[in-house]
Amino acid sequence: MTLSLEDVRALDAADPLRDFRARFSIPDHLIYLDGNSLGPLPAATPARVERAIRREWGQGLIRSWNDEDWIGAPARVGDKIARLIGAAPGEVVVADSTSVNLFKLLSAAVQARPGRRVILTEIGNFPTDLYIAQGLAALLPDLEVRAVEGEAVEAAIGEDVAVVTLTHVHYKTAARRDMAKVTAAAHAAGALMLWDLSHSAGAVAVDLNGCHADLAVGCGYKFLNGGPGAPAFLFVAGPLQNALATPLSGWMGHAAAFEFDDDYRPAAGIARFLCGTPPMLGLLALEVGIDLALEADLHALTRKSAGLWDLFAERISVRLGSHPFRLISPPEPAARGSHISYTHPQGWAVMQALIARGVIGDFRDPDVMRFGITPLYLGYEDVWRAVETLADVMETAAWRDVAPRQAGRVT
Amino acid sequence: MTLSLEDVRALDAADPLRDFRARFSIPDHLIYLDGNSLGPLPAATPARVERAIRREWGQGLIRSWNDEDWIGAPARVGDKIARLIGAAPGEVVVADSTSVNLFKLLSAAVQARPGRRVILTEIGNFPTDLYIAQGLAALLPDLEVRAVEGEAVEAAIGEDVAVVTLTHVHYKTAARRDMAKVTAAAHAAGALMLWDLSHSAGAVAVDLNGCHADLAVGCGYKFLNGGPGAPAFLFVAGPLQNALATPLSGWMGHAAAFEFDDDYRPAAGIARFLCGTPPMLGLLALEVGIDLALEADLHALTRKSAGLWDLFAERISVRLGSHPFRLISPPEPAARGSHISYTHPQGWAVMQALIARGVIGDFRDPDVMRFGITPLYLGYEDVWRAVETLADVMETAAWRDVAPRQAGRVT
Repeated sequence: MTLSLEDVRALDAADPLRDFRARFSIPDHLIYLDGNSLGPLPAATPARVERAIRREWGQGLIRSWNDEDWIGAPARVGDKIARLIGAAPGEVVVADSTSVNLFKLLSAAVQARPGRRVILTEIGNFPTDLYIAQGLAALLPDLEVRAVEGEAVEAAIGEDVAVVTLTHVHYKTAARRDMAKVTAAAHAAGALMLWDLSHSAGAVAVDLNGCHADLAVGCGYKFLNGGPGAPAFLFVAGPLQNALATPLSGWMGHAAAFEFDDDYRPAAGIARFLCGTPPMLGLLALEVGIDLALEADLHALTRKSAGLWDLFAERISVRLGSHPFRLISPPEPAARGSHISYTHPQGWAVMQALIARGVIGDFRDPDVMRFGITPLYLGYEDVWRAVETLADVMETAAWRDVAPRQAGRVT
Repeated sequence: MTLSLEDVRALDAADPLRDFRARFSIPDHLIYLDGNSLGPLPAATPARVERAIRREWGQGLIRSWNDEDWIGAPARVGDKIARLIGAAPGEVVVADSTSVNLFKLLSAAVQARPGRRVILTEIGNFPTDLYIAQGLAALLPDLEVRAVEGEAVEAAIGEDVAVVTLTHVHYKTAARRDMAKVTAAAHAAGALMLWDLSHSAGAVAVDLNGCHADLAVGCGYKFLNGGPGAPAFLFVAGPLQNALATPLSGWMGHAAAFEFDDDYRPAAGIARFLCGTPPMLGLLALEVGIDLALEADLHALTRKSAGLWDLFAERISVRLGSHPFRLISPPEPAARGSHISYTHPQGWAVMQALIARGVIGDFRDPDVMRFGITPLYLGYEDVWRAVETLADVMETAAWRDVAPRQAGRVT
């Protein structure tokens, strides 16, 4: 039996997370289904950044590295992220971009498994994950990036594999990997396991230590609502930390950075994976998003995410069953992340027409329409209205009037 | 003949740059001589960042990558920095940290000179410059970091040297290298030349193309006033760009990032040296600092920098000649940067006492007191008063009352 609009409103009224919507500054009349690409602005962020600029930088100046503990922020915010992803204090640090952190951990992993010369990954992994592995392989003799079809990864973990690198939730399809199972397969073959949590952290339950994961990276500007180009994070399991080394051995990862020695000595623990000076404005903005995520009950979040997602799929079936929308995300809650994706032959133009009507999702080539399902700030009626708007776009064929696509634009 | 306070006030009254002081938000009664470590807050920065947060991120959301040209910001701000350092449009891009950019360019240089297995640098170079070279050498077979005494560098550029990496203005002594001469020596031996401009950009005249420099990196948060942990920049001479490759081959450096290909193809030109998603809050804050620097007449800036510097040295001689302050910076304007350094046996405690009295410089082990001479926001009387305050600290032996130094603090 399908839900009615009345049912949907009743779900919103009973939603234990309903008050979180007011904690974000989202334009009225906009339905934002792209938090998987850039999370919206937490209402507390502008004041926090203004304080950082006017008071900490403007008044405190250089003294704020100590007095406001700027220097401790990468570890402090890392410890907060750790609580969202099943890691322990001292296992996560905020630094650089996801791409740079991938390079640090892939190179560390390859050096830790001498004799093994393969980085194993999947075809169609998020591009930067592939590109960074390719860049490392171009630098190091005899290192190979082996990309196989997604379902073939586990069987391909052989004795020559140094590290398996996969995205936990796939950026296009939202398919979620069984982290414990794949990690165990990597370990059984003597390989290290690196997870990219960019589409997981803040979106689905993650238990890195429960799965015995070795390494992970993730993004600050998607489901963690850290702002455009927010710094990223990385995780290294505690027992591994002092056995690994990053070639990006910048001064912030030194055992005693302010002794200004000529010789690099890595800091003990996770701090050795820092490189340059922490990007304070971005880092403090990110902290606001993390603090907000930590306030929400993860069980309520997971339950509501599933409910919103199922409603979205149901409404597409009911209202757009005669159109060629094809669901490419797994229908089982445990097998998916927190976005839902459809292919449609005119997907790009349809998405532009939808955006013009105030429902923002995004598009990935060649024909994928993605919709972020973010329970912190979306309600059931938002999902209902989003699909009604899409139905209107299709019924009026509004997508035919969309201006042609331009090369080089961010999609 | 030494200058009197009256003379000094006349210099301030006639200073063509005097109006720039009001363009910064510096606390009253503070004399800030640490712009070489963290530049102060430009008055226009808070409103620019607030717009970026509330309007571009909050209202525009994901659309701002196109509509506000966030995606073009690394190149746009890079082109502005190019004007400060003698580079052409399309030769500079803003990205990552100085440390990460050093890694990109050192690894690119080493790959471009196969058969040459030495990175040549100087003992006592800025630590992260040394550490990053050491990290690369630990990763690559047979690569050696050869650090020699500063005056021995040119003679040490042999046939085995792939790249010479030096800081243009030394972080401790402010000694400035002859960029044209050293670059020519590197080229004569077939090596590439990489300059770290962290203590030069925005502080002294730099003419990268006039000196035929190959590669450069620099810092956004010192003399460019970009804010704590502002993103850094890198320069690659135009003719070299498409011949070089960075192993940090992230998606933002791809020829067509938004086609989401599985295979990395570097973008043509400077864009190939981008890696992850640009850190927008930091980048837009940095742009304000750059715009301000571009407004100032470089000749007036250079002249005033020399005048302030000479006055500082003169006042130390006059007021503190009986104390063991030893100048370690070169007295000739062309041979120095825009900070001045002295050793003093109790340098650390003296600096703390000075800071407590509202004159902020900094300290570098073992005994170096550094004072940033920044003509954009310092006047001649500020310099006079700074030395008077230091004289008071010495005459009252106030430094004896300073609490003991704590390990791990930012100095």
